[in-house]
Amino acid sequence: MSENVAIGIDLGGTNLRVGVVSEAGQVMRRIKTPSSENILERILDTVSDLFTKKAAGIGIGVAGLIDRINGKVLISPNLHVVEEIHLVEVLKEKFKVPVFIENDANAAAIGEMWTGAGRTYEHFVLFTLGTGIGGGVIHNRRLLDVSAEIGHMSINADGEKCHCGNNGCLESYASARAILSSAVAILETKRESLLGDFCGGNIYKITPEDIYKAALEGDVLSRELLKNAGRYLGVGIANMINMMSPDAIILAGGLIGAWEIYVQEAIREASKRAFKELFGRVDILPAELADNAGLIGSAWLVFNRQAHA
Amino acid sequence: MSENVAIGIDLGGTNLRVGVVSEAGQVMRRIKTPSSENILERILDTVSDLFTKKAAGIGIGVAGLIDRINGKVLISPNLHVVEEIHLVEVLKEKFKVPVFIENDANAAAIGEMWTGAGRTYEHFVLFTLGTGIGGGVIHNRRLLDVSAEIGHMSINADGEKCHCGNNGCLESYASARAILSSAVAILETKRESLLGDFCGGNIYKITPEDIYKAALEGDVLSRELLKNAGRYLGVGIANMINMMSPDAIILAGGLIGAWEIYVQEAIREASKRAFKELFGRVDILPAELADNAGLIGSAWLVFNRQAHA
Repeated sequence: MSENVAIGIDLGGTNLRVGVVSEAGQVMRRIKTPSSENILERILDTVSDLFTKKAAGIGIGVAGLIDRINGKVLISPNLHVVEEIHLVEVLKEKFKVPVFIENDANAAAIGEMWTGAGRTYEHFVLFTLGTGIGGGVIHNRRLLDVSAEIGHMSINADGEKCHCGNNGCLESYASARAILSSAVAILETKRESLLGDFCGGNIYKITPEDIYKAALEGDVLSRELLKNAGRYLGVGIANMINMMSPDAIILAGGLIGAWEIYVQEAIREASKRAFKELFGRVDILPAELADNAGLIGSAWLVFNRQAHA
Repeated sequence: MSENVAIGIDLGGTNLRVGVVSEAGQVMRRIKTPSSENILERILDTVSDLFTKKAAGIGIGVAGLIDRINGKVLISPNLHVVEEIHLVEVLKEKFKVPVFIENDANAAAIGEMWTGAGRTYEHFVLFTLGTGIGGGVIHNRRLLDVSAEIGHMSINADGEKCHCGNNGCLESYASARAILSSAVAILETKRESLLGDFCGGNIYKITPEDIYKAALEGDVLSRELLKNAGRYLGVGIANMINMMSPDAIILAGGLIGAWEIYVQEAIREASKRAFKELFGRVDILPAELADNAGLIGSAWLVFNRQAHA
C-alpha cells in the first residue's frame, strides 16, 4: 500500500529548502538552494522537481508575519518580495493540491514536536538562533498560532534601535548578526584577537563559526562576545519561562554550535533570573532536526490542518 | 427552576473577595475583607456566610504561582502563608463540593472574557496594573493555562533588582509600587511639587490617586512619574503584541484610573514599538468588571472545569 506524502517548504531569508516528507515525518528527498533571487520561480521549479502523485498537499513556512486567515505573508523583513505574492494561491493553482502556510519558526516548532527534541514534551518554547531570532510555542502539543516574535521582545527598553522599529530587541543582542556586528566594531579599533587569523585578515568576512573556534582556542575577545550574547539570550529565556511556564526550552539554529560558551552562559543567566519554581521544571536542550525542522513542520500542516478556503 | 450558583474567591495580597455568582456570571452577593491576618479562618468564615445548597462548587484565584496538577500554591510573594496550606483540600473537606484554583490574574482574564471587556474577543492579553503587575492570556476564548507572569518580564536586562530575583522587571517600572517609590525618592530630595499638599506633608502616605490628581492639576513631577511609568508599560504591551498577536490588550487594576496620562502614554509608546501590522489590529481598552473580575472568573471554573482529582 502506497502512503501519502507531503511537500514541505522552508523559505528563509538565505535558503530555500523543499522536501518530500512521509506521514511518519521522515524526509525522503530534499533540495536546498539559495533564496536570494527569482524566489517564486525557484520555489515552483523545486517543488516541480520533487512533486509526486502521492503528494497530499504542500506546506510552506516563511520567515515573516503570517496572516493565517487569508494565507498571506504580511511582512518578511529579509524577503520582501513574498509580501507581494499570494504564495498559497500560486502554489494551489499550479499543483492543484491543498496548500498551508505558517511562520518558519512556528513550522520548526511543529517539526521538533513531531519527530524532534520536542517529541516528549507537552509544552515548550522553541528559539531559532541564527542571523535573527525567531520563536514558536507548543502548548498542550499544539502550536500556539500566534506571531511569537520572541526576537522582537525588548529586553532593554532604552537600548539601540532594531530594524523592526522597536528598541533593545533580544535579536539586537543575542543573534549571530549582533555577535558579528560587535566583533567587527571591536576589531575595527585594532584590538588584539586571534580572530584576525581566522578570517585571513579580512574582518568583514568573519563568521560565527570563526568566533566560536577562536573562543575554544582561548581568544579573550571571542569568549567575551559569545558570553555577552549568551547572557542576553538568558534574559530572553528567563522571560519566556516566567511567562509561559514551559516544560522545555528547545534551542535551534546555527548558533547552538557554540553551545559550550554561548548557550551555557544563557542557561546560567536564566537560572539566576527565572522564578526558581519554574526554572526547576524546565529542560533546556538543543533541537534535533537541524535545518529540516521547518520543512518537516510545514509538511505536518498538510496531514493535520484544514485547507485555506 | 432554581439555578446553580458558584462561590468565587479572589485572594489577593491586600483583599479577600468572596462572591456568589450565577451561571450567567452575575454576582448575586459579595463580601470584601482584608487578607492580611488569619487568612485561612477568614476564607472559611466568609465562604460559610455566603454558602448555599445551590453552590455547585468553589473557585479560588490566588495571587501567586499555581501548580494546577496538584491544586497547590507554589509561591505567593505577598501572601506566603497560603504556600503552606493546601487550600483546595481544606475547602473541599469543609464544604463537600468540587474546588478549583487558578492564579488571580488568570481568573480575572477569564472573568473579563465571560462577562466583561473581553466578551467579543477571541484572543486577548489582560494586564492587571496595581501594586504589582500580573497577566492572563485568553487564546481562542480559552485561558492559556500558563504562569503568564508578565510583570516579571525583564525590559531592562541590566536594570535594578526585582524582589523576584530578576533584574529590570516590568513591575519595577510600571506598577503602583514603582510609581510611589519613585515619588518618595524624588520628594525626599525636596523637589517642588503639588504632591506635598495632597498628603498633608507626609510624603510616605502618598497614594497613586494623589499623584493622578496632582498631575491633572498640572503638577510637573506627577506628570513625569505617570508618563515615565506609562512609557515602560508601553514597552511591556509592545512585547506582548509582538509575541502573542492578540486582538485586544485589556487593562485592569487601580492604575487604569490614571488612563488619560499613564495609559495614553503607554499606548503611544507601544504604537512606536510593536510591529505596525500587529498594532493596527489590536484594541487597547479598559477592563469592565473592576474588582469583581477575579471572583467571577474563579466561579467560571466551577461551571466549566473538571474537578481536581
